Amino acid sequence: MKKHNFFAGPAILPQSVLEQASQAALSFGDMGLSILEISHRSPEFTAVLEEARALAKELLGFGDDYETLFLQGGASSQFFMVPMNLLDKDETACYVDTGNWSNKAIKEVKHFGNIDVIASSKDAGYTYIPKDYEIPSNAKYLHLTSNNTIYGTQFHAFPDTNVPIVCDMSSDIFSRPIPTEKFGMIYAGAQKNMGPAGTTLAIIRKDLLGKVNREIPTMLNYNTHIGKKSAFNTPPVFPIYVSLLTMRWVKEQGGVAAMELYNEEKGALLYDEIDRNPLFVGTSKKEDRSLMNVPFVMEKGYENLETTFLDVCKNNGIMGVKGYRTVGGFRASIYNAMSKESIQTLVDLMKDFADKNA
Amino acid sequence: MKKHNFFAGPAILPQSVLEQASQAALSFGDMGLSILEISHRSPEFTAVLEEARALAKELLGFGDDYETLFLQGGASSQFFMVPMNLLDKDETACYVDTGNWSNKAIKEVKHFGNIDVIASSKDAGYTYIPKDYEIPSNAKYLHLTSNNTIYGTQFHAFPDTNVPIVCDMSSDIFSRPIPTEKFGMIYAGAQKNMGPAGTTLAIIRKDLLGKVNREIPTMLNYNTHIGKKSAFNTPPVFPIYVSLLTMRWVKEQGGVAAMELYNEEKGALLYDEIDRNPLFVGTSKKEDRSLMNVPFVMEKGYENLETTFLDVCKNNGIMGVKGYRTVGGFRASIYNAMSKESIQTLVDLMKDFADKNA
Repeated sequence: MKKHNFFAGPAILPQSVLEQASQAALSFGDMGLSILEISHRSPEFTAVLEEARALAKELLGFGDDYETLFLQGGASSQFFMVPMNLLDKDETACYVDTGNWSNKAIKEVKHFGNIDVIASSKDAGYTYIPKDYEIPSNAKYLHLTSNNTIYGTQFHAFPDTNVPIVCDMSSDIFSRPIPTEKFGMIYAGAQKNMGPAGTTLAIIRKDLLGKVNREIPTMLNYNTHIGKKSAFNTPPVFPIYVSLLTMRWVKEQGGVAAMELYNEEKGALLYDEIDRNPLFVGTSKKEDRSLMNVPFVMEKGYENLETTFLDVCKNNGIMGVKGYRTVGGFRASIYNAMSKESIQTLVDLMKDFADKNA
Repeated sequence: MKKHNFFAGPAILPQSVLEQASQAALSFGDMGLSILEISHRSPEFTAVLEEARALAKELLGFGDDYETLFLQGGASSQFFMVPMNLLDKDETACYVDTGNWSNKAIKEVKHFGNIDVIASSKDAGYTYIPKDYEIPSNAKYLHLTSNNTIYGTQFHAFPDTNVPIVCDMSSDIFSRPIPTEKFGMIYAGAQKNMGPAGTTLAIIRKDLLGKVNREIPTMLNYNTHIGKKSAFNTPPVFPIYVSLLTMRWVKEQGGVAAMELYNEEKGALLYDEIDRNPLFVGTSKKEDRSLMNVPFVMEKGYENLETTFLDVCKNNGIMGVKGYRTVGGFRASIYNAMSKESIQTLVDLMKDFADKNA
């Protein structure tokens, strides 16, 4: 039975990427060795790293004033590395709170400087993206989480401000074009739209660095990694290689503009069914709906059918649609590599389930 | 032509491990999905992580008072995380300086507390392991680097002391039994003897933690990861899985005691040839020779043959034997997965080269 992978992360990757990754684990290029056992200083891997660094910027349209790094430690490590590198102890950073991931980022700022949480959608269970707030012009940076995997909300526009935006794009990187000029830095754990778990993309405007008065351990200083082209120490070779394969695939599909059109089509297919179907209801505000993570629940009065529908999904090869443990219900993650055909399979099941149970 | 992989790291892995890794990248277990695209919270990956954590301790014989973590950021990140977690600002840690890696560890201590470098072999180009030194009994810990990949030296015995030893075992982990009771903590980047690049093993005696008076960012606190069984955030799924496959292979070979016997045989084969051959000379002190990394140079007067011998190696499938850039000459890295047959191939070339050129 064909499996349909709706996991929230680590998440679906293109089949062609998996096949190339599998092959490289046996024999990479014409080296006669596995990519798992070659030097990170070999010309072959250096070429991989350089292509990956360049392609990440090319896909998004960042210019020469930005540097690309492939780090380790997940986006969770960027939560503290951002203020450690960018915020002096008497300065203030602004954060917008749109859910779990924003909260984790917010928690780490106190070690390094002042924080001003200028907006939050906590009042409505994080079901929307705050829009009317003032950004103090003296803020060192404004931190946003572009997509919330748990609550299924997404920034469809970024604020107009002279304050550089630092944005956690872990769950929607490469899913659409972004206004690069607004960003001082973006970062993303690989394991949603970029590759397997084990590396974190960071794209940083160089002039923001080297301005804080604190001693930073070598490995935690962005400038250490920039100075060594992201190979100061042994980088996570295989996760970076598979991320490169995935970025090449995005480029082959027509780049992030083409991904956006496809993601809009896929999102419409699923959201339209949720809105039409008498058994299911979406949980996030329509104008802020995420095109990456689609949370929904049973309509009032039908909650007892939740387990039954999860069983139906399982029996039809639909994997990973159980909602996040603190939220319940369902969540279909439909990242770049998710096909329209898999979404159609889910939609057909929902229709059929309503016909039988509504 | 068969390739013989003498790279210093990332380094050779057992062929059976590479085959299983390649297969899992296509389809893992009976999930019908690649291991690169499954949730780190799935029962299938949780089982991998738990087996890996248990097997690391089992292979080395650590008891219940120790915890195993699979972290990110390389051993280079442990250089600062060790003092950050273990050393208060008015306390002193002792370090033995046996080369590049010790030096990098030493450099990070100043951010957190006092350092006392109690011994160094810098005076003789790091060609030996210091042995006669006093360890102040009030030291918080003693830091050692068990094997030096660059200079080819290795601790064949560990000091007797009541001070807990913290040891960087990146390049000889699982290559031999160790006296576990002497260690407060050991750590190792995976990419030599344990797996591919992208994860770092840490085994820590729990009672050493939680005793420093400083605020530690969440991701840098060992207790964060211990509390979440090494899955606080998304762990590097594939590097951990391949590390587990390699640890299972070590166990199948008879464990670390069997590995030690095999490594001794392999080392003798190569060192005996270096000592016998009129063209080559070993650079490290005999009693401190590493069984993992074997550095050697051309005998005086024959230096002009260095490039020729490197060409001979290349033409015969011998890869990665060029010496470290700051040291020159040759280095054959002969980790656990290196076969006696590959070493015999190198030895035969050395014999033949001497017959033709001496």
